[in-house]
Amino acid sequence: MVDDQRGISLSLLLTGNEILSGNTIDTNSVFLAKALAEAGLEICRKVVVGDDLEMIVKGLQALSQESDVVIVNGGLGSTVDDLTAQAAAEAAGLKLQLHPDAMRHLENRIGQPNWSGYPSYLGQIHKQAKVPVSALLLDNPVGLALGFSITIGRAICYFTPGVPRELEAMFTESILPDILRRFRPAEPIDSARYNITGIGESQIQNMILQRLPAEIWQDIQLGFKAGQSTVEVKLKPIRTGSNPHLREIETMMNDLFREYLIDIDSTLFQAVANRLQERALKLATAESCTGGLLAANIAEIPGVSAVFEAGLVTYSNESKSRLLGIPSAAIERHGAVSREAAVLMVQGVLNVTGADCAVGITGIAGPDGGTATKPVGTVYIGWGDRSTIDCRCLLIRRDRRQFQQLTTAAAADLLRRYLYGYATDQRYYFDELSRS
Amino acid sequence: MVDDQRGISLSLLLTGNEILSGNTIDTNSVFLAKALAEAGLEICRKVVVGDDLEMIVKGLQALSQESDVVIVNGGLGSTVDDLTAQAAAEAAGLKLQLHPDAMRHLENRIGQPNWSGYPSYLGQIHKQAKVPVSALLLDNPVGLALGFSITIGRAICYFTPGVPRELEAMFTESILPDILRRFRPAEPIDSARYNITGIGESQIQNMILQRLPAEIWQDIQLGFKAGQSTVEVKLKPIRTGSNPHLREIETMMNDLFREYLIDIDSTLFQAVANRLQERALKLATAESCTGGLLAANIAEIPGVSAVFEAGLVTYSNESKSRLLGIPSAAIERHGAVSREAAVLMVQGVLNVTGADCAVGITGIAGPDGGTATKPVGTVYIGWGDRSTIDCRCLLIRRDRRQFQQLTTAAAADLLRRYLYGYATDQRYYFDELSRS
Repeated sequence: MVDDQRGISLSLLLTGNEILSGNTIDTNSVFLAKALAEAGLEICRKVVVGDDLEMIVKGLQALSQESDVVIVNGGLGSTVDDLTAQAAAEAAGLKLQLHPDAMRHLENRIGQPNWSGYPSYLGQIHKQAKVPVSALLLDNPVGLALGFSITIGRAICYFTPGVPRELEAMFTESILPDILRRFRPAEPIDSARYNITGIGESQIQNMILQRLPAEIWQDIQLGFKAGQSTVEVKLKPIRTGSNPHLREIETMMNDLFREYLIDIDSTLFQAVANRLQERALKLATAESCTGGLLAANIAEIPGVSAVFEAGLVTYSNESKSRLLGIPSAAIERHGAVSREAAVLMVQGVLNVTGADCAVGITGIAGPDGGTATKPVGTVYIGWGDRSTIDCRCLLIRRDRRQFQQLTTAAAADLLRRYLYGYATDQRYYFDELSRS
Repeated sequence: MVDDQRGISLSLLLTGNEILSGNTIDTNSVFLAKALAEAGLEICRKVVVGDDLEMIVKGLQALSQESDVVIVNGGLGSTVDDLTAQAAAEAAGLKLQLHPDAMRHLENRIGQPNWSGYPSYLGQIHKQAKVPVSALLLDNPVGLALGFSITIGRAICYFTPGVPRELEAMFTESILPDILRRFRPAEPIDSARYNITGIGESQIQNMILQRLPAEIWQDIQLGFKAGQSTVEVKLKPIRTGSNPHLREIETMMNDLFREYLIDIDSTLFQAVANRLQERALKLATAESCTGGLLAANIAEIPGVSAVFEAGLVTYSNESKSRLLGIPSAAIERHGAVSREAAVLMVQGVLNVTGADCAVGITGIAGPDGGTATKPVGTVYIGWGDRSTIDCRCLLIRRDRRQFQQLTTAAAADLLRRYLYGYATDQRYYFDELSRS
C-alpha cells in the first residue's frame, strides 16, 4: 500500500518495553498520525519492539526496505536500555561517534538552572551525544536528547526522543518540513468524513449499504476508524482524484445519521461542551458508579470553566443524602440504584450547585453487588433541568472499566441529545435492554 | 531475540485503522502481554497495520518467517474492512471456504434471543464463517466471530477477534493451552522485579549503578518498563538459570527505594486503596483543575466503596464556596489557586462528607489562566485529617491532559506517603520547583 495522497510509504518504529506491553497510552502515535494526516500523509504500518538491540536492528532493516520514510521513536535517553542510536548504526553499517554539536547542546542544556539535578550523571548523558557517522542532527529545543536522520536502504529514517513534548517540537520544526521538501505533493482527493456517536460499525455499514445503489461502490471505498466514543466513517474515491458522488453521499449521511453526527475530529465530550456554550448553560454532574469519570472527561477540554459548574461523586449512600439532600428513606424504599435515585440525584445536584442543567448516574459497575432483578451492568442515567427531568435504564454487561467508560459515553450522549432537543430513546449498541 | 523462559519467539499482529492511529487504548495488547507473562512467555515484537489487505498479507508473511507463534488480532467481523481471513488465506497460499461448523455456530448464536438485532444482515455475517482450507476452528463462547489457527512458514498463527471479551475467552480457553502443549517449558529464572513510584527511570538507574559493584553486571541485566504512574525495574540473570545476587539485590532495593516501592503489578491508586483498607479509613476528594480524575482513578478499583466516601469537583469559584463552605473572602484574598485554598478544600470536604481523610487539589491546567507569579502548571495539593493538614506546591509544565494525569499521580502518592507516615517532601521528577 502506498499513501494515496502523496504516493509515499511511511512507517513508524516504536521502541520500549512499556509500549510493547501496552501499559502506556501511546500518545506519540496519536500525535504523529494526526500531524501527518493534516499534511495529507498516512501511516502505512507501525512496528513495536522492546528494548532489545537485535530486535530494533531487525525492525529497522525490514522497514527501511519497504518504506520511503521511517520515523523511529524512543530509546534516545541515557539509561542502559536506550539502544536506538547503536541500533541505527548497526542497521546502516556505520560507526557511532561523539558529535561535537550534540556535545555542545548537552553542555548548554545542563548548564541551565532547570537542569541542575543532572550533573552527577554527566558521564551517562554524554552517551546521548553519540550518533552514527554521517547522521544529520535534529534540534531538540525543549530537552536533552538530540534526534538525527540517516538513510538506510531506500528510506530516510528520522530518530526521535520518546518524551512527547520533545518529539512534538522536533517533528513540527524539523522533520515534517524535511519530509514535505523531499516528496512533492500529489493531487488532493475529496474524501467525505463523518463522525458518528452511539451506533456500532456494523450497523452503520448496514444502513449505508441498504441506502446507496450498488454501482456507487465501483467508485467509492468505505472505511471505519473507531475512536473512544465515536466512529469515523470515510467514503473516499477508489481512484485518486475527485469524488463524483460527493453531494449524494452528503445528503444520504445527513439524512440517515443526523442526530448521531458530531463535528469531525471532535469528541463526544467536546460536542457537549460546545452545545452548552452555544446555549449559555452551566452543567453539573452527580456520579456514583462512574466515580467522576464524566466530570474528568469534560474537565479535560480547555476553557470548559465557562460551562462546567461542579461535579459530585456521591459514592456511598450516606454521601447521596449528605451532599445531595436525598432523603435516606427514599434510598431505602427504591434502592440507591433506581430510577427514583437517578432523578433525585439530578434534582439534588441542581439545588446544591445552582447549575442550569445536570446529569445523575447510579448503577452497578461490578464485579459484585448485582441482584436477580438488578444484575451487574444495570445503570440509571437521569438528566434535565429545573422544569423537566428524564431518566433511562441501560444494561451494559462489560468489565468494570469498560462499564464505566460506556456509561460515561451514554450519559454524555443523552445530555447532548437533550441539549439539541433530539429524541433520547434511541438504541445503543452496547445496551442489552434496548436490543430486546 | 528469543523468549528467555521457553525459548520461543512470539509476535503480535494487530489490524485496524483505529489501532494504527493510536486513538483507541490498545487493551488487547495489555491483556495478551499480561496473560502471556503469567505463563512465562514474552512478546518479542508487535506489528500494527491498517485495514488494508496487502499490508496484512505482508505483515503475516514477514512475521511467520521469524516467529514460532504469531497471534493475529482484529478484522474477523462482518464489515467490508474486516479482511483478516482473506489475508490469512493469501499469506498461506490457501483458498477460503465456508466452514460447516462455523455456519452452525453462527446460526446457533443468531437464533438466541440476545442476537435478535442481527437477522437483517445475515448475508454479511455468513462472511464470518469463511476460513482458509485446513484451518482449525477456535471456539468463541461469547460472540459471533470464530477464530482459527493455521501454519504459515515456520509459525503457528492464531487468528482472533478484536472484541476484548471475545479475545479473552478464546485465548484463555483455546490458544494458551495449545501454545503450552506445543512448547515445552524451560527452566524458570529468578527475576527480581520492583514497582517504583515518583522517580524517573534515569534517576533510578543512576541510584542502582552507584550502589552495586561493577562486577555484578556480568551476571545481571537491568531493564525498565514504565507504567502510568510507576516504573517496573527488573534485574534478571543474563544466562538462563538462577540469580546469584538475589539477596544482595533485595537488600539494596529495599534500602534505596523503601518509601517509593509499591506492590508489584499494583497501580499507585490500588496501593492507596489497600492502605486505606488496612487502616480502616474513609477517603474524600476535592478537586478543581483535575476535574474528578483522582476520584475516577480510585473508583476504577473493584470493591473501593469500603474506603471511598465521596468526591467533589468544585470547578468554579462559586462551587468552592457553595459546596465546600470556603468563604468567598478567603478566595478573593489568596486566590483560588493558593496554599490557603487547597487547605480550606481539604477542611471543607472533610466537613461536608464526614470522611476520615481527604485530598484537595487546585491549580492552573492551562493553556490559559497563568500569571507571572503563578504560571500555567502551578498546582497546590493539600492532604490530611481533622488534626493536621499539609500542602505542597508543584510546577508541572505539560499539556493540559498530562498536567491532569501527573497532578493526579502526585496527589495519590502524597496521600500514600501520608497514610504510611513517610516523608512528603521528596522530589518528583516532573516537578520543576523541587528541582531547583
